[in-house]
Amino acid sequence: MAHITVSVEYAIHGLLWLVGSNAKALSSREIAELQGISPSFVAKIFPKLEKAGIVRAQEGVRGGYQLARPAGKISFLDIVDAIEGNKPLFDCQEIRGRCAVFGDDVPAWATAGTCAVHAVMLQAEKAMRQSLSEQTLGAIAERFGRTAPREFHADVQSWIDERMSERTVRSGKPSSTSPP
Amino acid sequence: MAHITVSVEYAIHGLLWLVGSNAKALSSREIAELQGISPSFVAKIFPKLEKAGIVRAQEGVRGGYQLARPAGKISFLDIVDAIEGNKPLFDCQEIRGRCAVFGDDVPAWATAGTCAVHAVMLQAEKAMRQSLSEQTLGAIAERFGRTAPREFHADVQSWIDERMSERTVRSGKPSSTSPP
Repeated sequence: MAHITVSVEYAIHGLLWLVGSNAKALSSREIAELQGISPSFVAKIFPKLEKAGIVRAQEGVRGGYQLARPAGKISFLDIVDAIEGNKPLFDCQEIRGRCAVFGDDVPAWATAGTCAVHAVMLQAEKAMRQSLSEQTLGAIAERFGRTAPREFHADVQSWIDERMSERTVRSGKPSSTSPP
Repeated sequence: MAHITVSVEYAIHGLLWLVGSNAKALSSREIAELQGISPSFVAKIFPKLEKAGIVRAQEGVRGGYQLARPAGKISFLDIVDAIEGNKPLFDCQEIRGRCAVFGDDVPAWATAGTCAVHAVMLQAEKAMRQSLSEQTLGAIAERFGRTAPREFHADVQSWIDERMSERTVRSGKPSSTSPP
């Protein structure tokens, strides 16, 4: 399994549908169907994003997930950390203290401070995290937006509008009297 | 399991015993015993380092593994790649083509070029690899050397000399007539 898992990929692609000032709140099922991914997978991922303060969930007929802050303020690192938790790139086993000449009496100098090998790995991890922190959901949404033709955006809007109508039909309330 | 595994940790700590112009060639069993790690694990790791041109193996009573080039020319990235192979940080599933509005007819623009999400991950991976490429086995050996007191180096030398004597006893040849 790759260090940054498919859950992060699903989270980012799911979140991209929530970007934009006119973006409707979408349920995890709607996000999954729009993106063509497993609804049960999305249902596990989005509560983690909510817990991390990346999305907020609203109840009601017009409810669903919305970004909790502007997409330009949500970095890829925020999303990776929300999904993966504190997962180190390298899990130091501190084998520097296991040298045969020490026997059972490991001298203090041998295990003082951070192991030099571990320090190199921590630096590489820091470089990776720095790179992820410099990219935002907003910037990537813009890049996707530029690639897609105008009709695509209209098609997506129709798909979402249709789902919104189905919600109000199911709830038995006409759209105009639904809570905002 | 961490992205950079314990095999890399064992490889680096094992290689550190081979650094230095006076370093003796050590068998994988001697490296394992000196470092206090599993001999069968080391026996699996060092052939990979040999294949990658990081160490060379010599036959004979004085044989064993030696660095194939100066330690200052062996980067951490060389070692990670030798052990882990081509293991991406992120394994893109190309889900951008699975949008519900496409149906079975995915337009060419939707999957042209590298996915923007994947591109961000590749950039983070590049930053991590760049950091690992800037650190060498030689530099870390120097750092370990500075931390250890003089007696430690003497103790290690004695341990290795003892093993070398045992080898010549086992081979039935006096040390002076062994091949260089």
